[in-house]
Amino acid sequence: MPPLVKLHMRKLEDLQAVISNAVTQLSFPLHPAALYEPLTYILSIGGKRMRPALLLMACDLFGGDINEALAPALAIEVFHNFTLMHDDIMDNAPLRRGKTTVHEKWNQNIAILSGDVMLIEGYKLMMQVKDNLLRQILNIFNETAVGVCEGQQIDMEFEIRDDVAIDEYINMIRLKTAVVLGGALKIGALIGGADQKDADLLYDFGENLGVAFQLQDDILDVYGDPQKFGKQVGGDIISNKKTYLLIKALELARGETAVSLNNLLTQKQFDSAEKIKAVTSIYDALDIRQQSENEMHKYADKAFTALELIDIPEDHKQYLRDFADGLMVREN
Amino acid sequence: MPPLVKLHMRKLEDLQAVISNAVTQLSFPLHPAALYEPLTYILSIGGKRMRPALLLMACDLFGGDINEALAPALAIEVFHNFTLMHDDIMDNAPLRRGKTTVHEKWNQNIAILSGDVMLIEGYKLMMQVKDNLLRQILNIFNETAVGVCEGQQIDMEFEIRDDVAIDEYINMIRLKTAVVLGGALKIGALIGGADQKDADLLYDFGENLGVAFQLQDDILDVYGDPQKFGKQVGGDIISNKKTYLLIKALELARGETAVSLNNLLTQKQFDSAEKIKAVTSIYDALDIRQQSENEMHKYADKAFTALELIDIPEDHKQYLRDFADGLMVREN
Repeated sequence: MPPLVKLHMRKLEDLQAVISNAVTQLSFPLHPAALYEPLTYILSIGGKRMRPALLLMACDLFGGDINEALAPALAIEVFHNFTLMHDDIMDNAPLRRGKTTVHEKWNQNIAILSGDVMLIEGYKLMMQVKDNLLRQILNIFNETAVGVCEGQQIDMEFEIRDDVAIDEYINMIRLKTAVVLGGALKIGALIGGADQKDADLLYDFGENLGVAFQLQDDILDVYGDPQKFGKQVGGDIISNKKTYLLIKALELARGETAVSLNNLLTQKQFDSAEKIKAVTSIYDALDIRQQSENEMHKYADKAFTALELIDIPEDHKQYLRDFADGLMVREN
Repeated sequence: MPPLVKLHMRKLEDLQAVISNAVTQLSFPLHPAALYEPLTYILSIGGKRMRPALLLMACDLFGGDINEALAPALAIEVFHNFTLMHDDIMDNAPLRRGKTTVHEKWNQNIAILSGDVMLIEGYKLMMQVKDNLLRQILNIFNETAVGVCEGQQIDMEFEIRDDVAIDEYINMIRLKTAVVLGGALKIGALIGGADQKDADLLYDFGENLGVAFQLQDDILDVYGDPQKFGKQVGGDIISNKKTYLLIKALELARGETAVSLNNLLTQKQFDSAEKIKAVTSIYDALDIRQQSENEMHKYADKAFTALELIDIPEDHKQYLRDFADGLMVREN
């Protein structure tokens, strides 16, 4: 007799490997070559395949067959890479993970059109679910996709605004990054057999964890261990990026501190190390790190609260807790 | 007792008016404004609403309730305008139907991102069909959308190629313009209650008519009545556009004629009227008009052959014949 509940969840790294392998098997039409080659190219550049792996994990969590979730998981990865292809045009980025971006390697028109067809290919993959789940899963996918577009637009607007409020910022990162995590988990849960309530709770878990994760990223940019943080520490400070820390500092700074901060943000010529040091001093004086961590924990707690309410075996729940803990104290 | 078959089909212009009215009722989120305003803007510029009206007509043809076809019809119009928004970036076009294009009125990044969200909104509208038709209709929509992207890519490649063959050209116009007509008609037919066979036949009718229509457009650019043709007669000749006529002439020209034609295509400075006259003379010498008309009639005949096989009342069939005739001898 097969066990009703699997005792061991698949490891996240195994699921990531499943996705990485499946991505190499994805095939698109050969013609027109210039339309489809960029899809294979951008997908081959890599990345951690975290979003699709989470979709498989959610399916596994409810005892589902991850093979049934594979095409939708690939849909999430294809969709994510479509957004990267178009974002790179908008950001005029020459490189993506150290490789030439599509609009640089081919040209801008091809990057626009290949991105368009990539979004459609995402829908085609996402449709490979059972009839009884088709509409609901596509609704989630639509909302996810719209959210990412809205988040990207709001983020672009932030670059030229100097009055961004904290709640606007949280909403932006929710749309731009967290909604996809929630959506991927919810889709995987439904394929795995979760009921509506549990699927919604897993969505909440993912979305709140995504916000917490982005806030942690903001904190680590300033306070991370340079040995562990993948990017240059202080990169956000150098580029005046409107992170949670900067927005909070602008909100709290008064008098001379406000003048100093604004001077640092507006100076055209500066020594990077000095600017990082000066801005960090202001953050320290305003206790920004603690407040940012409080905000991060607020969203992490929301994620864990949703998790506790999900009706799955304790060991599966523990698996998700460990995953979230690992995400929140990753090697930075 | 209600009649089993309606005696009178709705007029196409009435259906176009239904669409035009429904387009004005379409509402998108208010925020972020810069993301959604371009959707309302480009949809307000107008156009004949032919594609969505054909979708309604197909539904009506099989006795369906056109209200059930309205959202999918709008999906086709929204999708079409998404392609226009992105095509205008690629073509660097300043104007669309006499109005400033989105990338000029806002900026290129907004035109990319608004286009992306517009494609997603198209899917949301297309999903407003009954469950039993959802998968099939989305499959048609996917294939249509992919076809348009492929057609656009092939068309861009033609601009820098000098060895385009006739069958490649026919395939390009099929993908870029005809597939949407076929797809719109098939979706409308299915909503109207057509069986698979009739829906496929109506697709064939639409696709072949679309090819014939584009070939007619090529012919009229050279031989149309300047009083009736909406665009400048000879516009394709001035821009060396690879139309059916030019490709056929390049294929047939030999000796001095080939040299003359190539000279006309490569000269940097020229008098437009003289170039039009000279190229047209070569077309005349090669009997290009007749051959183009033969090709056009070949596709129109295919369309009518498909039509004859459709299982609908004779008066409905006559309606479609009249529509096709009207399309093929429109006021040019």
